Amino acid sequence: MAQITAVSPLAPAKFPTLPVIQGVQFATIAAGVKYQGRSDVMLATLAAGTVIAGAFTRSATRAAPVLDCQEKLGGTSDGGAAILVNSGNANAFTGKHGTASVEAITSSVASVCGIDQARVFTSSTGVIGEPLPHDRITASLETLAATTSPDNIADAAQAIMTTDTFPKGASATVDVNGQSVSIAGIAKGSGMIAPDMATMLVYIFTDAKIDQTALQGLVSDSNNKTFNCITVDSDTSTSDSLIVAATGASGVDVNGNEAFAAALRDVMQDLAHQVVRDGEGATKFVEITVTGAASDADAKVHGLAIANSPLVKTAVAGEDPNWGRIVMAVGKSGAAADRDRLSIRFGDVEVAKDGWRSEDYSEEAAAAQMKKDEIAIGVDIGIGTGRATVWTCDLTHGYITINADYRS
Amino acid sequence: MAQITAVSPLAPAKFPTLPVIQGVQFATIAAGVKYQGRSDVMLATLAAGTVIAGAFTRSATRAAPVLDCQEKLGGTSDGGAAILVNSGNANAFTGKHGTASVEAITSSVASVCGIDQARVFTSSTGVIGEPLPHDRITASLETLAATTSPDNIADAAQAIMTTDTFPKGASATVDVNGQSVSIAGIAKGSGMIAPDMATMLVYIFTDAKIDQTALQGLVSDSNNKTFNCITVDSDTSTSDSLIVAATGASGVDVNGNEAFAAALRDVMQDLAHQVVRDGEGATKFVEITVTGAASDADAKVHGLAIANSPLVKTAVAGEDPNWGRIVMAVGKSGAAADRDRLSIRFGDVEVAKDGWRSEDYSEEAAAAQMKKDEIAIGVDIGIGTGRATVWTCDLTHGYITINADYRS
Repeated sequence: MAQITAVSPLAPAKFPTLPVIQGVQFATIAAGVKYQGRSDVMLATLAAGTVIAGAFTRSATRAAPVLDCQEKLGGTSDGGAAILVNSGNANAFTGKHGTASVEAITSSVASVCGIDQARVFTSSTGVIGEPLPHDRITASLETLAATTSPDNIADAAQAIMTTDTFPKGASATVDVNGQSVSIAGIAKGSGMIAPDMATMLVYIFTDAKIDQTALQGLVSDSNNKTFNCITVDSDTSTSDSLIVAATGASGVDVNGNEAFAAALRDVMQDLAHQVVRDGEGATKFVEITVTGAASDADAKVHGLAIANSPLVKTAVAGEDPNWGRIVMAVGKSGAAADRDRLSIRFGDVEVAKDGWRSEDYSEEAAAAQMKKDEIAIGVDIGIGTGRATVWTCDLTHGYITINADYRS
Repeated sequence: MAQITAVSPLAPAKFPTLPVIQGVQFATIAAGVKYQGRSDVMLATLAAGTVIAGAFTRSATRAAPVLDCQEKLGGTSDGGAAILVNSGNANAFTGKHGTASVEAITSSVASVCGIDQARVFTSSTGVIGEPLPHDRITASLETLAATTSPDNIADAAQAIMTTDTFPKGASATVDVNGQSVSIAGIAKGSGMIAPDMATMLVYIFTDAKIDQTALQGLVSDSNNKTFNCITVDSDTSTSDSLIVAATGASGVDVNGNEAFAAALRDVMQDLAHQVVRDGEGATKFVEITVTGAASDADAKVHGLAIANSPLVKTAVAGEDPNWGRIVMAVGKSGAAADRDRLSIRFGDVEVAKDGWRSEDYSEEAAAAQMKKDEIAIGVDIGIGTGRATVWTCDLTHGYITINADYRS
């Protein structure tokens, strides 16, 4: 939303070494869309035959590039394809100007790369409601196309950042019947994070060979258990986009392969966790596991009610084992609960059981759990077998400073 | 939630002079439930024939006194009645201990006041999950009952405060066919404020004569447009309770009287606004009016999505006319919207229209609106005739300090 601040204390030690994905090349450039002195446009070119799946925000005010991507998903995969992303401007709530910008960019990319316009996917992230100066992007396309390289994915992760304090990447290599398939993904996101049916900006590439419908099935399913289970501030972006591209360049067929599905999900979960770790102002990474709910869906509703509660999040910031606020959040969530069957744990310390403070409750033991950088909250609703895990961060003075003191 | 801080900058200049309501007497005492050196228990005795209506939280983890009040509502009004409230401890999530405390208190009040136990209503507010030391309350009842006075309502407003920085009162006097009827109410609330089907702690008294079902109808209807339209932090208390007592002592029948209904609603709205003005850390009072929605219900969903958005609330705190965040909140609310018909105003300054920034948008004019202590946000969805008004405050460093730095 605002300016880039010091690196999050929850950031990984360094950007991971990501495998080269055959059939994908990256280029970045400083086009001056809004930021000065840093790259802000990323082009990924994809080999002929690449299959593309995705998930997008369901916001009623979603941005023009999101609508364009949604229309194109599931189309032909005969020719090559491309993904073009700019940071600094979301091209959201820009009316017919927004649609015109998408048209200008996608037609230029198609022309420069020699591919079908229906195979050009774009995303824009940054300020809402300002016209996108798309001329700065189209003027950079010849240079971008001339400088693509299979090795540039780390630069791509940098170019798509807005308030992110570190670039986000994750990968996996899967053995499929003795043959190797690679997956590499990048993401951006730090505020306005509460994906409803989608995510922030995420691009994942693999050289696996897979049908589009099979890939879409894997993406939608894992999305609901990864990106849709994180929240920083309960606010949902107008631009959330996840695109997964399978080039097939390895020649290894992964249709129906469980190891590939698990690896793809692991990469998605890793990226989702990194987004939470870069939550605006975050100092604590919180995993909330809800069990014993009436259904998995109810467990997720309870989990997100806890994860989105300002009172729970400030208690975590204050290292206060204030489990009464978790009782409150379960109570307000709207999902089924029975006050007198509820139990709560911080890490391995049980603090509440069967509707009241645990008999052997220890304030010191509970407080010790809250001092950690990574906090596990366990909530058993006690009425069924539904379960879900969600992830969030704390709510600190840093969040207020970032979002109250600067124009996004 | 935490300690009492400096008085809110949005507080009224002084506590209003409330009319004496015939048939109601108040007493307060410092019983030492949790706080030291201040009153923390309030007793209101109600004359025989007093009719009682109410609204309560629908939290699934609601407190024992709330459940007890809900059971008693709508019963006989033959004898006298009483309301007993303590601050410092919510008696919530206290299992069978909680029920036992309610039983001990209500039976003692009934005995000391010479009334039916089914006519004793109690509320508790403060920390969740600690056993209520009800002996301190029952030990104070003889003194309380011996010191009641019709003039003590201002003391009662003080005794029920927790993190409130000022006591809240409001009143009205209504002419009903040439005869006068009075209404006086008090409230507490400052954090954990997002009443779903009810409110925080509110007690309203009138000497009007009215049937219980008629009074309940007025209370439920006005509640949905007053207390249920405010939010401080999107978190819903386990103890929210609104009780309206009509003693009938004026002898003036107000069944079906529209002036009385309007006056009662005005008192409720006034108290609701005062709760927002005492929102934890608040520096701005924000009125959000949504028009042009598909239905009134949809308008309220949009309004509350805007009012609960951390990004909107921090923008208000930062005096930033960041209307893109309002677009975002409308988009995520789940209620129907059309991005390209949306328009937004700050005060009388139109900032967005028909899906884009207004043609004559002026950053200075918009910024000037945000400098005010009281900010009016107007959002027209552009697709129907549904409308709603909701009220909230900004999200500041003060909220983080109050809720992250102290154990509630």
